[in-house]
Amino acid sequence: MADRPAASPRDEDVDAALARLRQHVEASAFHAWAGLELVSVEVGTVEVALALQAEHLNPGGILHGGLIATLADTAIGLAVRSALPADRTHVTAQLDVHFLERVDHGTVRATGRAVRVGGRMAYGEGDLRDDAGRLVARASGTFIVLPG
Amino acid sequence: MADRPAASPRDEDVDAALARLRQHVEASAFHAWAGLELVSVEVGTVEVALALQAEHLNPGGILHGGLIATLADTAIGLAVRSALPADRTHVTAQLDVHFLERVDHGTVRATGRAVRVGGRMAYGEGDLRDDAGRLVARASGTFIVLPG
Amino acid sequence: MADRPAASPRDEDVDAALARLRQHVEASAFHAWAGLELVSVEVGTVEVALALQAEHLNPGGILHGGLIATLADTAIGLAVRSALPADRTHVTAQLDVHFLERVDHGTVRATGRAVRVGGRMAYGEGDLRDDAGRLVARASGTFIVLPG
Amino acid sequence: MADRPAASPRDEDVDAALARLRQHVEASAFHAWAGLELVSVEVGTVEVALALQAEHLNPGGILHGGLIATLADTAIGLAVRSALPADRTHVTAQLDVHFLERVDHGTVRATGRAVRVGGRMAYGEGDLRDDAGRLVARASGTFIVLPG
Repeated sequence: MADRPAASPRDEDVDAALARLRQHVEASAFHAWAGLELVSVEVGTVEVALALQAEHLNPGGILHGGLIATLADTAIGLAVRSALPADRTHVTAQLDVHFLERVDHGTVRATGRAVRVGGRMAYGEGDLRDDAGRLVARASGTFIVLPG
Repeated sequence: MADRPAASPRDEDVDAALARLRQHVEASAFHAWAGLELVSVEVGTVEVALALQAEHLNPGGILHGGLIATLADTAIGLAVRSALPADRTHVTAQLDVHFLERVDHGTVRATGRAVRVGGRMAYGEGDLRDDAGRLVARASGTFIVLPG
Repeated sequence: MADRPAASPRDEDVDAALARLRQHVEASAFHAWAGLELVSVEVGTVEVALALQAEHLNPGGILHGGLIATLADTAIGLAVRSALPADRTHVTAQLDVHFLERVDHGTVRATGRAVRVGGRMAYGEGDLRDDAGRLVARASGTFIVLPG
Repeated sequence: MADRPAASPRDEDVDAALARLRQHVEASAFHAWAGLELVSVEVGTVEVALALQAEHLNPGGILHGGLIATLADTAIGLAVRSALPADRTHVTAQLDVHFLERVDHGTVRATGRAVRVGGRMAYGEGDLRDDAGRLVARASGTFIVLPG
């Protein structure tokens, strides 16, 4: 279909690739520090979560916009990576985030989706939702696809 | 001028307002946790800095995009707040970040500017630069202006 | 639900409001000049179409990005308007467009959706598709909601 | 400098390249139809103008957002093209437009600048101003750089 990733890992390699992606995230000092948890990884769709702590809130007492952007960037970027062939990598060129609802407690879940993956460019989108299922933010990103 | 904040605090109150903004940031658990330092505050222009630590880097060893967005959101949001009258506040509606250069050490400085401040909407922009003065990212944000 | 327009016209007025919106578009010199056709209008969802002519193509022979943005802006803006109460209006604050596939003939259809409509801000999204159903572009917009 | 185009045509070829770019635009059916005038072309900076006609206004009587996006896309895209080496071309991946002031008469001028031009990605920005010099819109775009 037009909206599905055009370039996916071959089926026989998918499990290994997803396992490597999971290890990659779990070994990350950034993800441990920020408190990001990798909930699920499939080809083209990744979910990450953040259990809110006091240090995640801005001076107004709500989840800081920078952490909303961090969740979106992580979920969309990993979704794009999960949909790339094994001989490609990517860098983020651009991220656009729309802040729709305030959230001040509980766990925020970000779902990233690879919407289009080409040979030179990829595009993905993400949603953030709170424990009540409210849409906290919507985001989109542009990625450059590279060999290696 | 067309590009300057349309609504600024009255001169006699500016020093007090900027002092309150500085206290507001310095008392923030988020800013302490993230390692953000407030470098300077003027009406319509704010500079914040982040001295990079190992936990700020993504698994590829460069500054995580989420922290670039955090620096941009903080600098632009504070610049808008510094340009609002005392009886107004704001919320971020949208943030767009363009990632231009990788950075993996030193201090990253973000300068935010209030480009247009109206009665219902504000717009600001920001630059991030590394120690060598390279432009690491450019960002822009849309803010809703509210009473109170 | 969290994702549905929070502020909709009352049911008894919906048909009249949608008829006014349709007249508003059909009387527009811009829409006639640009060749935009209003395909369907419901509360929170609007479809517009453009049958491509030679003057719509850029020097490379594909639909100009400015017309893709025009289709997106029109469809999303009308979708937001269709979801506003009768005593409110809106202005566009920001539009973000991602260009995903080239198109050089046939009809391009843009579907706009009001994703969140609040008392001061609205957010909407849109898709553009060609005759083969390929996703030509994705767009999102931020709107300021005003009395009157 | 960090913010200047990294890859520019060689000096001896610049005049020829700018002349080709000017011919490219002046031969375009789209530009003639839309009423776009190419005011100036230098390496990395391009100005285009639109003298407003009745058909350029939306039903509210102000310049349609789609034409603001068209001016921005054209000026930024040409600025990027003017800064690319002769053996490279580009496609627009993403365009973000912020609408700051309404305009309903006179001429609107868009200045596009190539802010960063690399081997695979380029980034540019643009301003739109009316006859009084007011900042009507700010825009930014992400471009994929290709051989050919």
